[in-house]
Amino acid sequence: MAEKSNWLRELKVGVVGLGYVGLPLAVAFGKVRPTVGFDVDKRRVDQLLSGLDETGQISDSDLACSEKLSLTSNPEELDSSNCYIVTVPTPIDEFNLPDLTYLHAASQIVGRYLKDGDIVIYESTVYPGCTEEDCVPVLEEASGLCYAKNAGNAGVQGIFHVGYSPERINPGDKSRKLHQIVKITSGSSPEVAKIVDDLYCEIISAGTYSAESIVVAEAAKVIENTQRDLNIALINEVAVICNKLNIDTEAVLKAAETKWNFQSFRPGLVGGHCIGVDPYYLTYKAQQVGYEPEVMLAGRKTNDSMGHYVANCLIERMQRENIKIEKSKILILGVTFKENCNDCRNSKVFDVIDSLLKRGCLIDICDPWVSDGAISLGGEAYQIEDPHVGEYDAIVLAVSHQEFKEWGAAKIRSFGRRKSVIYDLKYLLRPAESSMRL
Amino acid sequence: MAEKSNWLRELKVGVVGLGYVGLPLAVAFGKVRPTVGFDVDKRRVDQLLSGLDETGQISDSDLACSEKLSLTSNPEELDSSNCYIVTVPTPIDEFNLPDLTYLHAASQIVGRYLKDGDIVIYESTVYPGCTEEDCVPVLEEASGLCYAKNAGNAGVQGIFHVGYSPERINPGDKSRKLHQIVKITSGSSPEVAKIVDDLYCEIISAGTYSAESIVVAEAAKVIENTQRDLNIALINEVAVICNKLNIDTEAVLKAAETKWNFQSFRPGLVGGHCIGVDPYYLTYKAQQVGYEPEVMLAGRKTNDSMGHYVANCLIERMQRENIKIEKSKILILGVTFKENCNDCRNSKVFDVIDSLLKRGCLIDICDPWVSDGAISLGGEAYQIEDPHVGEYDAIVLAVSHQEFKEWGAAKIRSFGRRKSVIYDLKYLLRPAESSMRL
Repeated sequence: MAEKSNWLRELKVGVVGLGYVGLPLAVAFGKVRPTVGFDVDKRRVDQLLSGLDETGQISDSDLACSEKLSLTSNPEELDSSNCYIVTVPTPIDEFNLPDLTYLHAASQIVGRYLKDGDIVIYESTVYPGCTEEDCVPVLEEASGLCYAKNAGNAGVQGIFHVGYSPERINPGDKSRKLHQIVKITSGSSPEVAKIVDDLYCEIISAGTYSAESIVVAEAAKVIENTQRDLNIALINEVAVICNKLNIDTEAVLKAAETKWNFQSFRPGLVGGHCIGVDPYYLTYKAQQVGYEPEVMLAGRKTNDSMGHYVANCLIERMQRENIKIEKSKILILGVTFKENCNDCRNSKVFDVIDSLLKRGCLIDICDPWVSDGAISLGGEAYQIEDPHVGEYDAIVLAVSHQEFKEWGAAKIRSFGRRKSVIYDLKYLLRPAESSMRL
Repeated sequence: MAEKSNWLRELKVGVVGLGYVGLPLAVAFGKVRPTVGFDVDKRRVDQLLSGLDETGQISDSDLACSEKLSLTSNPEELDSSNCYIVTVPTPIDEFNLPDLTYLHAASQIVGRYLKDGDIVIYESTVYPGCTEEDCVPVLEEASGLCYAKNAGNAGVQGIFHVGYSPERINPGDKSRKLHQIVKITSGSSPEVAKIVDDLYCEIISAGTYSAESIVVAEAAKVIENTQRDLNIALINEVAVICNKLNIDTEAVLKAAETKWNFQSFRPGLVGGHCIGVDPYYLTYKAQQVGYEPEVMLAGRKTNDSMGHYVANCLIERMQRENIKIEKSKILILGVTFKENCNDCRNSKVFDVIDSLLKRGCLIDICDPWVSDGAISLGGEAYQIEDPHVGEYDAIVLAVSHQEFKEWGAAKIRSFGRRKSVIYDLKYLLRPAESSMRL
């Protein structure tokens, strides 16, 4: 263990997990200090070594600029690090419960190389208490070392420290990159909190916020996306009510937004690996301590039901237009979880597609951001590159990719048959240019 | 009916209802054009005539400056008006259903004086459709005239027009007065929408927003406070979870607020005549058309339960401190629905008090904003002017009036017995200065 005064200077970072979160972080640290970027996925590492980041977060030149970074899928190379940063995904399982598999596996790997005085910082979104209650025991067992907080005054073989600094990466947001987003930091003691904060200050020009404790930092992170999820859920409920009353939802929202404190949200499908997932971490912990968080869960339920709702609305409208549903041809424009990115994980557009397939519809999917074969489709659903003119009974604008905006109403309409329905979920067209909106 | 070109110039305003909403409006219009301000409450009108506004919205000199305003409790004086603005309360009944009694009564009074070509503008918060479905029929029956939209081409005796321009008054907010708040306007035809908008432009320097239709304006208003209610409900759930996990809620919120898009809210009791009430108007309409708005209702349920929750937390803490609950003396600091105003309507502090009374506690209430006798208290609850030193087993900081801030921790603590609990619901003191916080 280094002298305290040299502690910061001597930190060698090992980033575990090179996805949306880990790669930008490893690249940033690799510009200022020795950094190992590790991922278990050899294919991913090989691609990165060839200069390609398929998540689109980091450019070839960014990678090249990170001169002190070495990328590897060999865990043994983590042995040279003394400050580990864990950035693995924390998804949910089929019962909407936290799935800590990756977090445990990463902790086990780190534990294997942990040395006396090392620091392990977690960035993954978790419930309050997870770092110290779930991850630390794995680290202790795998390393044979003692968590500094538990060491007390008893003589122990060696100790390690822990920090938590939640990621706030916004995939696809070119104007808010890692260094431009204020970062919460925390540590297992005031001394560790300080060193973790100093460490991140090196790469975050927007500044850091040193939270009171690890558990405060954990709770802060998980409520951020929970708030966003719930606000979209509210607007989804408003949209359902407006639809029932034949009021244009967007007109209502635009009017309400003229109030100084009204928050601007739009209805829609809430997918991806954050907003629709994180709230379940908090609700899991709440239920564990005997509290039923009805507001959060109502929000999740509403948002999770929107894919089905959208499909039903479309079917009803097609029936009103006397379009036969069975074997009707429907074009889905966009399938990623948000616009202008290629990430299809947990995209709720698939819920729309599944519901329509169950009704016997034939589905063509067009998404310029998703390469052929990147998504697995069942039933009568096919990915196509160029929609045919005059082919479809219904067209669903599901994601507002820049390409679709550029196509405009005329081109999009041209794909439809004479009597066809255009369903604009994203207010991509003007109100009069579509048959129905969310 | 005036020539269209002179229409705006010849409008004579009659404001029906001189409360928080109507009085500032009548005063503003009375500065620019002939205005009658009418209220059924003769006592209120007499007080205003003597220069006193007990709601604290309008000063003596403001009233004096409004030279073209005449205030009256005699409805016959409305006969000289040709543009009526209805600003009566729209509360809920004991079953949380819309109570349109005041709105119907006001419409009946206005109907009596309505003349061919007149306009009736509603400002009260309602559900979408209420103005045209509920108020217009009352106006038609009372006036014998026909709503212009229903008149068609058939020859009718006379017609009237309708507008809707929701109030956005923020009681007690000195920095956002009527003229500083953008106002939504709407009308029953494009022509009427224009005249209503022009009319309000005269008094609103912040500008107006002409909504597409009356129903859009109605929906916009009711979702504004619904959003606020729900966001506070979420933070209340977060607070309950944090309390269970022994995390300081405010620390978590402060950390989360360092994210660019996190919305700042604090937990608390949601009372008053707007935020806790308006959502029920929207949920009523939603249920009427067959949709159960679970998110909105979960928010209402959580917020409505907070008074009881707060009382329970206090009792539990007192028991842990071995304070006997029966006949314990509890000081409640503040009883209004929000800080720095004297409005106690629907204040949820009374829920806290009721729950504590049921447990046998003796309650003293101190609120410098509420004059003696202004609130009716049952059981062993008494309003006092100056709390005694060393008298209380528990002190609840329920409202963050400026006076309490000035008192500070030392003075507030001095009211407690040696072993006493200070419960800071409003983060008025620093974390270490109270025994417990929300």
